[in-house]
Amino acid sequence: MFQLLRDGKPRTRSELAVLTGQARSTIATRIDILEQLGLIASVGEASSTGGRPPATFAFNPLARVVIGVDLGAAHARIAITDLSASVIEIHDESLHIADGPKVVLDRVVEICHNLLARSGRAVSDLAAIGLGVPGPVEHSTGRPIAPPIMPGWDGFDVPGYVGRHFNVPVLVDNDVNLMAVGEYRTAWEDHDNMLFIKVATGIGSGIILDGALRRGAQGAAGDIGHIVLSDHSDVPCDCGNFGCLEAVAGGAAVARALEGTVKVPAGASLAAQGATAVVDAVREGSIEARTAVRDAGRSIGTVAAACVSMLNPSLIVVGGALVGAGEQLMAGMRESLYQRSLPLATQHLRVVTSQAKERAGILGGAYLAIDHVLSAEAIDAMNE
Amino acid sequence: MFQLLRDGKPRTRSELAVLTGQARSTIATRIDILEQLGLIASVGEASSTGGRPPATFAFNPLARVVIGVDLGAAHARIAITDLSASVIEIHDESLHIADGPKVVLDRVVEICHNLLARSGRAVSDLAAIGLGVPGPVEHSTGRPIAPPIMPGWDGFDVPGYVGRHFNVPVLVDNDVNLMAVGEYRTAWEDHDNMLFIKVATGIGSGIILDGALRRGAQGAAGDIGHIVLSDHSDVPCDCGNFGCLEAVAGGAAVARALEGTVKVPAGASLAAQGATAVVDAVREGSIEARTAVRDAGRSIGTVAAACVSMLNPSLIVVGGALVGAGEQLMAGMRESLYQRSLPLATQHLRVVTSQAKERAGILGGAYLAIDHVLSAEAIDAMNE
Repeated sequence: MFQLLRDGKPRTRSELAVLTGQARSTIATRIDILEQLGLIASVGEASSTGGRPPATFAFNPLARVVIGVDLGAAHARIAITDLSASVIEIHDESLHIADGPKVVLDRVVEICHNLLARSGRAVSDLAAIGLGVPGPVEHSTGRPIAPPIMPGWDGFDVPGYVGRHFNVPVLVDNDVNLMAVGEYRTAWEDHDNMLFIKVATGIGSGIILDGALRRGAQGAAGDIGHIVLSDHSDVPCDCGNFGCLEAVAGGAAVARALEGTVKVPAGASLAAQGATAVVDAVREGSIEARTAVRDAGRSIGTVAAACVSMLNPSLIVVGGALVGAGEQLMAGMRESLYQRSLPLATQHLRVVTSQAKERAGILGGAYLAIDHVLSAEAIDAMNE
Repeated sequence: MFQLLRDGKPRTRSELAVLTGQARSTIATRIDILEQLGLIASVGEASSTGGRPPATFAFNPLARVVIGVDLGAAHARIAITDLSASVIEIHDESLHIADGPKVVLDRVVEICHNLLARSGRAVSDLAAIGLGVPGPVEHSTGRPIAPPIMPGWDGFDVPGYVGRHFNVPVLVDNDVNLMAVGEYRTAWEDHDNMLFIKVATGIGSGIILDGALRRGAQGAAGDIGHIVLSDHSDVPCDCGNFGCLEAVAGGAAVARALEGTVKVPAGASLAAQGATAVVDAVREGSIEARTAVRDAGRSIGTVAAACVSMLNPSLIVVGGALVGAGEQLMAGMRESLYQRSLPLATQHLRVVTSQAKERAGILGGAYLAIDHVLSAEAIDAMNE
């Protein structure tokens, strides 16, 4: 019954009984419990044909708060939201994942406390935290597994370390998975089968099928950055293989290829700045940069075509810093995507850029946290 | 409660109350209803510490029957099973899908009647039919959509045409999807994330993620036969594109490539016989055929590696006629699969051949039918 009310619409006891098929007495008991938990509130009276008008109840998203944390290679973005994922306060800073889990997570905890204070909420108001990291995460334990750009994090108990400061559940996931969830839930909820592709310094994806994030057997699903492009088998990748999509079309690879051909301020290095430098070069009108981005788009489109054949999504959302380079990336991508796919799979396919943009990750984290605390099982448990 | 009993284990009312968390009175009512429907039966008494021993109840899979239908390009395989998918009677014959829906489905209906008669069951005992066809199917309507090797079937109302003869639900799906379900449910239920690849005259796959078949937006997910191999971009495919996996490594393609180099009986054509001819040639010791099959395996492994990066399955099951060619196919496949995948994704990955073999499709059809009629909603509806 509560899951029904999460849409925010107020309803009477009778309406809830009809919608759920449950007895009026059961509904009345559930409502009492949810009111005591603060999760729903009486919001006035329905119009009535006579007699005392019946009370209406609605979800109260401000009952508790959650925090969404998005950790990248060199940034932290953290937001506190209500139970409908509306952002209350947000904080951004540069933070280097390579400094190791203790340094990074201590700072994350500090920011969480600050955000709670700024929004005037007590620690006891916090219901859960959803946290994304730039590497693979074992879903069942929330521990990063062999993450290539996160030295010191392999197997680290992130939920335990963060959770002990707040005594709440901490859900940890790959950052691109969270971006996929954030994008899906805020902008595309009618596309139950969608693929989110992040094109930044690296390349990754998050897969939504039948309305839920699919993580695969060990949480590594969506790792398209290391799909091999046979026609680039001379390009070495950091992973030890050759011709990986990320090594050909990631922001770092494109920047490296442009080094020397694109003018940069004295002392600056394109390669070190990755996707940002490429976007800047395109914006400054560099033809070399535009061509390189278009080429990168074509390579991404080749892999996207394979994804489309395999998953038959109705939507591909492209996000990440390289999207800032403008239409060249999307044009290159669509070009090879449509060339390499069956008409059946692409006739209703939309290929768009991210709507949630840089907030996709924190919103995904917030949704992960909210879904966890408001699941039917969690509500039942609160009641015991 | 009923979903619990579907494992076949007998339980008492008290045990069911504990396991479901429902009130004993609710359980007692549900048991009465399910007994009246014949779906469960009292199967004796539990041992007791004193007083009257409590009755135990178990699922009665013989209460109804379902039929699984597997239609290929040139064959029909049809089985009648009980509600636990145990085969009661089975029938095999050659039947050409290209003869069109009415000819084919009229014959299917006739065989269904024969199977009911042979197993001594009335038409009213039939609960549902699960039917696989060799082409894409729109999941919501059960209609084939633009199926390349099924002239006359595009948009045909298969559920309506077959269902009217028996007045039961008819679930229609792609044949490889059904094989994936049959394989998963009968042999690999501990692998909730698995990929089934069929390598026969054509190539296709079925995707199980989080324990359920994933069909994508229009039912076309798993269509890996048309993923393009960049290093074979000179090979034309029936679909109008170049370099498709199926055009390079399908049984028909391999047979065509062997034409002229492998000895065949006078008047026979390898190409026309597809996968079967290739398997025969390998069994007769042809080195050319073995090399060609190994090469086909490598190409399939290239695409499988992309699937592994994308879906992170813990198991790949390979089925279809070309598996009969022996270890060369699997060896070639493993070779490029392991070469092109991240260690994280392959360290726990198993790559095996089909266990359900030629019965995978009919078993998948039976499970589709059974899941439909025994779903919680369907049971509730029977009760009204």
